Amino acid sequence: MSRRRLLGTASAAGAAGLALGGAGGAWAHSAAQEEPPTALTTLGSTTVPFHGTHQAGILTPAQAHGHLLAFDLVPEAGRKQAAALLRRWSEAARRMMAGERPSAGERDTGIALDAGPSSLTVTFGFGRTFFTRTGLKDRLPAQLAPLPDFSADALDKKRSDGDLWVQIGSDDALVAFHALRALQREAAGTARVRWQMSGFNRSPGATDRPRTVRNLMGQVDGTNNPKPEDEDFAGKVFVPSSGEPSWMAGGSYVVQRRIRMLLDDWDKRSLDEQEKVIGRRKSDGAPLSGGHEHTEPDLEKRGTDGAPVIPGDAHIRVTAPETNGGAAMLRRPFSFHDGFRDDGAPDAGLLFLAWQADPLRGFVPVQRKLDRGDALSRFLRHEASGLFAVPGGPRKGEYVGQRLLEG
Amino acid sequence: MSRRRLLGTASAAGAAGLALGGAGGAWAHSAAQEEPPTALTTLGSTTVPFHGTHQAGILTPAQAHGHLLAFDLVPEAGRKQAAALLRRWSEAARRMMAGERPSAGERDTGIALDAGPSSLTVTFGFGRTFFTRTGLKDRLPAQLAPLPDFSADALDKKRSDGDLWVQIGSDDALVAFHALRALQREAAGTARVRWQMSGFNRSPGATDRPRTVRNLMGQVDGTNNPKPEDEDFAGKVFVPSSGEPSWMAGGSYVVQRRIRMLLDDWDKRSLDEQEKVIGRRKSDGAPLSGGHEHTEPDLEKRGTDGAPVIPGDAHIRVTAPETNGGAAMLRRPFSFHDGFRDDGAPDAGLLFLAWQADPLRGFVPVQRKLDRGDALSRFLRHEASGLFAVPGGPRKGEYVGQRLLEG
Repeated sequence: MSRRRLLGTASAAGAAGLALGGAGGAWAHSAAQEEPPTALTTLGSTTVPFHGTHQAGILTPAQAHGHLLAFDLVPEAGRKQAAALLRRWSEAARRMMAGERPSAGERDTGIALDAGPSSLTVTFGFGRTFFTRTGLKDRLPAQLAPLPDFSADALDKKRSDGDLWVQIGSDDALVAFHALRALQREAAGTARVRWQMSGFNRSPGATDRPRTVRNLMGQVDGTNNPKPEDEDFAGKVFVPSSGEPSWMAGGSYVVQRRIRMLLDDWDKRSLDEQEKVIGRRKSDGAPLSGGHEHTEPDLEKRGTDGAPVIPGDAHIRVTAPETNGGAAMLRRPFSFHDGFRDDGAPDAGLLFLAWQADPLRGFVPVQRKLDRGDALSRFLRHEASGLFAVPGGPRKGEYVGQRLLEG
Repeated sequence: MSRRRLLGTASAAGAAGLALGGAGGAWAHSAAQEEPPTALTTLGSTTVPFHGTHQAGILTPAQAHGHLLAFDLVPEAGRKQAAALLRRWSEAARRMMAGERPSAGERDTGIALDAGPSSLTVTFGFGRTFFTRTGLKDRLPAQLAPLPDFSADALDKKRSDGDLWVQIGSDDALVAFHALRALQREAAGTARVRWQMSGFNRSPGATDRPRTVRNLMGQVDGTNNPKPEDEDFAGKVFVPSSGEPSWMAGGSYVVQRRIRMLLDDWDKRSLDEQEKVIGRRKSDGAPLSGGHEHTEPDLEKRGTDGAPVIPGDAHIRVTAPETNGGAAMLRRPFSFHDGFRDDGAPDAGLLFLAWQADPLRGFVPVQRKLDRGDALSRFLRHEASGLFAVPGGPRKGEYVGQRLLEG
């Protein structure tokens, strides 16, 4: 099967929003190699454009591997050094995402050699503290106001917040690790890693239901996400071109939460109990009121006993946009699994990532409602939190954040 | 593209030793689902047989995701409970590897629903302490004698050894996590997790050089591994059918080491320095004496300065079978990356797994030589260690270890 054939197939299969790596020369074989090249598959050869209205890694289908990091500027670094770092980071991200090989004599760990970019994306954001640290307090967006405290929070400050935020995603673990090391090297002397979390999603090709995502509770997740074909999708997720502050045009605000799942407790519940907590069937994600995964839940429907089929505290009732004044956010999470805790429970759950034009009309009202009466919350612990301003995508020749740092 | 076409392609591409999932009924769509099924890809549908001369997960191409766990029997459990556990574990492994859906009413986390087995393998082994704990001391293989101390060891006892050893591999992270949770549930009341480590390899399809493996130093790794087509391959890796103890016929001994790489130190070295430490070119893995990755290194070759082209302490010289009395082992590692350490260095490296018929003719002599004068060792820390007897594969109706526990 020729490479052209495979690429053509992927395109026909509807890899929407992806530009497929065409040239191939960037990581083609050197003449000295012995093995004959086999057909490149779409997994390796898929590239996501670095330039565009929005940064990559928001609308990109969630990759199999993700790293999330926050960096803090070192005390000696100010606005000038931060701008230089964003310029270096942007150039490194652009090249790695395009699958360009390191040039001769360039320092490179070599970890990604032989591999295609495998849908690599790198996304950059700014935390509230960045603006104070760089003398840009007058440009701090109102949307970066600290999130309110929620009663179920048990947040670890050391794993929360930060000056700069980086999201790396790739369908290959070594490509993702290579990107992490390359970005960390570029930061040396300017910013230090504050925290890092890693997660995963289903591998491309592992399922024949590629739109269905399951979390580590075994539950279908993300069914009710706003979809790009929805009429008001862009307005919910992205800052409009006329929006304020102007340097955020095309950008989005991301809320990240490390949500540990109490899986030992959860797995002890019967299937019936679990389904009532969520409001959906576990097998296929259909609402308990009937139909299939994408059937609108009937929140009014009552059983023969007169009780609502979808209980009053069911997760899908509490989070339904119609019960939240239309609040909506685009969730694009990774699962995480960091082994076992000292108490023997799995240290596993969801790296929740929610994208929205304004957290006060997205995450905050929904989480407030969840905090008051969500059956699912009893099985969750919010352990870390961050809110970051993710500016729009760079134009050619521009670096991410240039309109903030030089505007 | 039809499923048949994809399966045929994978077969032609030489997925040696793999039985491709044929029936498909086990995880076919239920009628209630809305989305039309897309073509299953080989990644999801590939199954590895549970039964056979050897256990799966030794000759199986290394999967993208791996979990390694040790369990200790609880004080109340003896031989009978251990046998019952191995029977439950074997049945669970068989079913999950075949991609069988949980039956109605069966407790299952549901995490693997929708996904194919994705080359799932589960491999079971016994540590030295298992034999004392179960009154089977007379069946303890001489090959399980404790490994000698090496000067570079800084072993954490809590992450070393253990009564029972489990290796899980899959090309899908959720399938691997599902297997881990299922096996842990079966162990409840009989054995507790002693330690767990997780790792990864390149994703299938990420590279067009599928036989080339890179580690987190960016170095091509495993070039010199014994290959199934080698004349004495089986004798090096597996206990022969006439071997002792007889319950280990078809089995193998696995040495596991958590080897942290001092990546910050390593990445500061020039390419030239790094290549001299290894003895191979970083770009393509060719020995410094010339040729391509699979060219035999010329250990005698000298440069114009009269010095050996492959330095005296180069890793490939110290580990060359011809300098070790022919000692050989099959390495099938996973890389690991557990974030950053408190000192800011990456907690990353190699979950080294070496398979051999006898550790005293495999790992031990090679590690002794490395311990004395290997340039690479300066960049490595051995932090945990284990040695386990992995019995042969089960026949139909048999469970893993039955010949030990009931023989």
